[in-house]
Amino acid sequence: VSDRPPPHLDLEAFFAPRSVAVVGVSDRPQNLGSNIVANLASWGFAGAVYAVGRGGGRVHGLQVLPDVEQLPRGVDLACVLTPAATVPGIVEALGRRGVRAVCVESSGFGELDDSGLALSREVSRAIRRHDMRLIGPNCLGTFATDSRLCCSFAGIRPLRAGPVGLVSQSGGVLFSYLRDLDESCLGLSRAASIGNKLDVDEVDLIHHLDRHPQTRVICLHLEDIRRGRALMEAAAGCSKPIVLHKVNRSPLTRTIAASHTASLLADHAVVEAAARQAGMVAVEDTSAALLAANALLLPPLRGRRIAVVSRSGGHAVIAADACAARGFELPPLPGSLLDALRARLRAGVIRLGNPLDLGDLWDIDAYRAILEQIAALELVDGIVFVAVQISAVDPAVHRRIATHVAEVSRNAQKPIALCYMSWRETARQLGQEVDWPQFAFVEDAVSALALLRDHHLRQSPPRPSPPEVARRTTGGAEPMALEDCLSLLRRFELPLAESRVAEDPERAARAARTVGFPVVVKLLSPEVVHKSDVGGVALGLKSAAQVRRACHGMAEQIAARRPEARISGYLVQAQADPGLELIVGFRRDPVFGPAVLVGLGGTLVEVLRDVALRVAPVTADDARSMLSELSGAPRLEGARGAAPLDTPALCRLIERFSRLALEEQETLLELEINPVILYPEGRGCVIVDVRGFVTNEEPG
Amino acid sequence: VSDRPPPHLDLEAFFAPRSVAVVGVSDRPQNLGSNIVANLASWGFAGAVYAVGRGGGRVHGLQVLPDVEQLPRGVDLACVLTPAATVPGIVEALGRRGVRAVCVESSGFGELDDSGLALSREVSRAIRRHDMRLIGPNCLGTFATDSRLCCSFAGIRPLRAGPVGLVSQSGGVLFSYLRDLDESCLGLSRAASIGNKLDVDEVDLIHHLDRHPQTRVICLHLEDIRRGRALMEAAAGCSKPIVLHKVNRSPLTRTIAASHTASLLADHAVVEAAARQAGMVAVEDTSAALLAANALLLPPLRGRRIAVVSRSGGHAVIAADACAARGFELPPLPGSLLDALRARLRAGVIRLGNPLDLGDLWDIDAYRAILEQIAALELVDGIVFVAVQISAVDPAVHRRIATHVAEVSRNAQKPIALCYMSWRETARQLGQEVDWPQFAFVEDAVSALALLRDHHLRQSPPRPSPPEVARRTTGGAEPMALEDCLSLLRRFELPLAESRVAEDPERAARAARTVGFPVVVKLLSPEVVHKSDVGGVALGLKSAAQVRRACHGMAEQIAARRPEARISGYLVQAQADPGLELIVGFRRDPVFGPAVLVGLGGTLVEVLRDVALRVAPVTADDARSMLSELSGAPRLEGARGAAPLDTPALCRLIERFSRLALEEQETLLELEINPVILYPEGRGCVIVDVRGFVTNEEPG
Repeated sequence: VSDRPPPHLDLEAFFAPRSVAVVGVSDRPQNLGSNIVANLASWGFAGAVYAVGRGGGRVHGLQVLPDVEQLPRGVDLACVLTPAATVPGIVEALGRRGVRAVCVESSGFGELDDSGLALSREVSRAIRRHDMRLIGPNCLGTFATDSRLCCSFAGIRPLRAGPVGLVSQSGGVLFSYLRDLDESCLGLSRAASIGNKLDVDEVDLIHHLDRHPQTRVICLHLEDIRRGRALMEAAAGCSKPIVLHKVNRSPLTRTIAASHTASLLADHAVVEAAARQAGMVAVEDTSAALLAANALLLPPLRGRRIAVVSRSGGHAVIAADACAARGFELPPLPGSLLDALRARLRAGVIRLGNPLDLGDLWDIDAYRAILEQIAALELVDGIVFVAVQISAVDPAVHRRIATHVAEVSRNAQKPIALCYMSWRETARQLGQEVDWPQFAFVEDAVSALALLRDHHLRQSPPRPSPPEVARRTTGGAEPMALEDCLSLLRRFELPLAESRVAEDPERAARAARTVGFPVVVKLLSPEVVHKSDVGGVALGLKSAAQVRRACHGMAEQIAARRPEARISGYLVQAQADPGLELIVGFRRDPVFGPAVLVGLGGTLVEVLRDVALRVAPVTADDARSMLSELSGAPRLEGARGAAPLDTPALCRLIERFSRLALEEQETLLELEINPVILYPEGRGCVIVDVRGFVTNEEPG
Repeated sequence: VSDRPPPHLDLEAFFAPRSVAVVGVSDRPQNLGSNIVANLASWGFAGAVYAVGRGGGRVHGLQVLPDVEQLPRGVDLACVLTPAATVPGIVEALGRRGVRAVCVESSGFGELDDSGLALSREVSRAIRRHDMRLIGPNCLGTFATDSRLCCSFAGIRPLRAGPVGLVSQSGGVLFSYLRDLDESCLGLSRAASIGNKLDVDEVDLIHHLDRHPQTRVICLHLEDIRRGRALMEAAAGCSKPIVLHKVNRSPLTRTIAASHTASLLADHAVVEAAARQAGMVAVEDTSAALLAANALLLPPLRGRRIAVVSRSGGHAVIAADACAARGFELPPLPGSLLDALRARLRAGVIRLGNPLDLGDLWDIDAYRAILEQIAALELVDGIVFVAVQISAVDPAVHRRIATHVAEVSRNAQKPIALCYMSWRETARQLGQEVDWPQFAFVEDAVSALALLRDHHLRQSPPRPSPPEVARRTTGGAEPMALEDCLSLLRRFELPLAESRVAEDPERAARAARTVGFPVVVKLLSPEVVHKSDVGGVALGLKSAAQVRRACHGMAEQIAARRPEARISGYLVQAQADPGLELIVGFRRDPVFGPAVLVGLGGTLVEVLRDVALRVAPVTADDARSMLSELSGAPRLEGARGAAPLDTPALCRLIERFSRLALEEQETLLELEINPVILYPEGRGCVIVDVRGFVTNEEPG
């Protein structure tokens, strides 16, 4: 990482070069390099274009230069599409000719095999030598509607300009995104297909697009993330909203999770938590990404009170359902406003309220007035406006309505989600004329507002800079001895149930007297992981005699069932009073470092899957916000009529646990305290059981 | 209901009439009736068309008859669009002229106010008198692509023919559905907008569309359901798949649910359960309805093993993620097949497997051969085929690929979900030429297969005919006395924890000795609903003295805190051993009758929301299938190493409980047993607590 150029190094040459050289051009029909030349021409790129190819000749009216040495010095951008084996030499030659920005579009590198990986290393050395930046290899290059640049080796018609900056790891997926941006009311500012990310990656491109004026929202499609904390930092510092569509969630080689924590903190869950923490909108699929990009172009939604205005009663019902399902309220509109409307409308075949069914009112200026009046209401945070126009299709009407909606929404700084249901060709045409998001379905419009609400509610104060991530683990994980887990908890002052380790039954009985009855006794044996399976846990022991008997009983069980197991002693623990059982755990993610979870616990934890996750560090404030995310949050208020539970104590525990996770991340892979029992206010919480895994890697 | 014509009475006249009369036509520009005449002309309707309107004159080349009496006798279908007040007289006159099928499109009836409701009643009498069938009022009439019929009063261009039969309660929503059918690869067979459903409803139309050859899938958009059991019967008997998009789920006037059962068995949850039981596919929104209609046109998916074939590695990754998220497996493909492929492909820049990334293979015949080979594999149940074609758009290629996919899929009788990502105008054009479903996003294609799998897995053996539904309740609900609940449970031989009612503390102590210690004592008082709030429950009492003390203590508490409450006695109950806590409940739904739920219970039930629902009757087999639907189903297997729980006993309990629900539905609105404690095999289950509500309506 240290040999990476500074992240803010300008990438402008990739998107607005004064000159482009295409390397790998010939006049053979299946030559892909010539498509780049053709795209630059059809898009109307105004800079100089040079073609390089061993065969020479002319392609699309350009003289093909036989090698890179023939290029003038200091071409701004080179696109390379030659066989992988030739690429290191070409990059080196380009560097010597003063080229500082290169898109390598060829494949056959690290994504293929070990010899491809060796080629990648050679390319890396060349770009370091000449202080170059490189996009790819194995990519489709860059696109910019402002400079009419298209470096794709697959032909694509010129795309319409718009506010979306796009970064996509896969070329095929980039293409389908470009289609969707072009065909929706969105449109493209700049795009990069980043392939193997040998040098430039999504972090660099966030910095670039943040400073690009025409870009107003950024979409990332990523198949892997390598600089997790840097991505979080870039996203948190970015002034524009970012939609993250991370795929490759279910690696086929996934190992079976060995614990609740590992199962609940799967790689992808950590990505989502990290994205939320950094203020990104993480989405699960392509259509959700497009919906999110549309939503984030609206003014912020600062509450949950929505007015629905519809020209169709049936769609008003659908909108009301969708609002209820997404946690919105539809406040009653003031009588004075409804009375004024009633005076304006024709005979009473409409019921006025919220949703407001405009029925047979067909008066565009009236729509504007109604939207203005509703947007001005203090009791309304946002509006869904639904219109159906299929019978008498008139694009001019559609355009006027969309323009009004955009103006009213911008003036009021409240979002108006427009769902104008017309034939698609009309909607598309309009999308190109009016710079305002549109939604094809009523439910999409409401979903967009919900996304906007959650996004803005989540915007949290700036966070302390995240720590460096631990090295990647190459070795495996091995379980920690229970005694080691306990001393770790003590070292971080975590509230462990009073516990003593005793070497034999007699000492255990004495320890129990000190701890106070009733006690729990657990067998200690490095060979036994699941103690309860072999009778290694005894609950509710009420006397020294019972403790002694229990210890002897365990020893007999072990001798009979697991003769190879050594008994290292007995843990004697004060039996905790009943209370609310929770789980707190962390796992060291290879990309984002330690991630912490809290959830409703006990045996139900994996059934409930009611957990909240954060990448460490987790402050007590963060912990409070984690608890508020649990579906079971109301249970923290306590039972009906009873005192609320001691959540401040739990938050302190989580904060300390997160510190433990960070400070021990060199060796500790995973730690789970389950259950933590939480008591009513003032009575704190207590840790009853713990399990940990350490790396078996040699330090170094 | 008894005065309703037999449901199978032919509705053909509404869709393929030989002659149509439009009543309410004039040459004023804003006259809507003339739009019907115009639509019939523009669609190319071949039958006779008559226009009726008081003003006479000519409209769209037709002579306007001044009144209905001027019509020839026996016109097949009349569309009426005149002010509501005139409609009863017009329907009566049409009846006298021998018209037997009428669409009343005017609004201003029951949906508006009481005088509109009175008009509806008059119309009902008229249609009964003349043995007519009526669609509407307050609707857009009927549409049929086979007979080129369009009775809409809003102009709409001719729609493409296709396999979807559509029934929509709202005219506006019908319009947006028509748009979506026309613009997707689907297409319309027949549609009806049914508005107020004064006579013809969705049940009648299911029967009609079931016998209509061009219709292959039926979509219902409903705002209310009035004949719940008849809908279930019609759907269960229908030979074609039905998609149910029920809206109006969150009535604004919803009362606060008084119990877990009422909250978990909300109206809409019962609709969904009933739909599933009747073999319908219930969807939550419009785009899901379209996706489902597309999916159901594919051959059945009989398992969960999918092969992904993609021309873009990026989309292959997305497909694999989507498959994993939807519970599919991607089995490894046989080496011999991959070897043959490798021989066919160009130099090794592709990794072969499942997903199968075709990379730079661009050979349509090869695609067909690959799909055929994979579809023939025993280990593959279905295929997702993804192609991107944006660069060199060639509709002919797209058409050939879609045709191949359709043929291979039909021949193999395994679904191939095609996601061909091209520009939308190409896709739409193709959709009109090739009769095969297409999906715009990879995730949609995978969702379609998941829907298909779940639909076919759910197809259960034909069920006993459902019972008649209890009358609608007009009165309120009142809590039952605990003693009454207990005797009801005993009458149906439900396994209640041993319980005695005692009048005073002394008798309670004696009862406790009979029951056996430890016992639980509960205060009985008609005025106290939440016993535990006022100290009315005592657990773990181990002696007669403790029981006596507990009873006296309760009496004191009540005297101090609820002086108005009478104490009718004490319930003494054997304290149940710990086990798995469940809830079993039923609520009498006003539309579908008693609906039964089972869920993981105790205080967590509403947090977990892990419940399964069925409309009664529920057999023991149904109960087993309900239990298998719970996310917590693995818990019924018992703890690690322990015996499985006694689910047969629980299923018998649910079956009896369902019988109780049906037999008592005249008076009993709701009954909840919570918790039911389930023990390991052979040890049965026991009901610990029960709560019921009866109607306070006078019987009659």
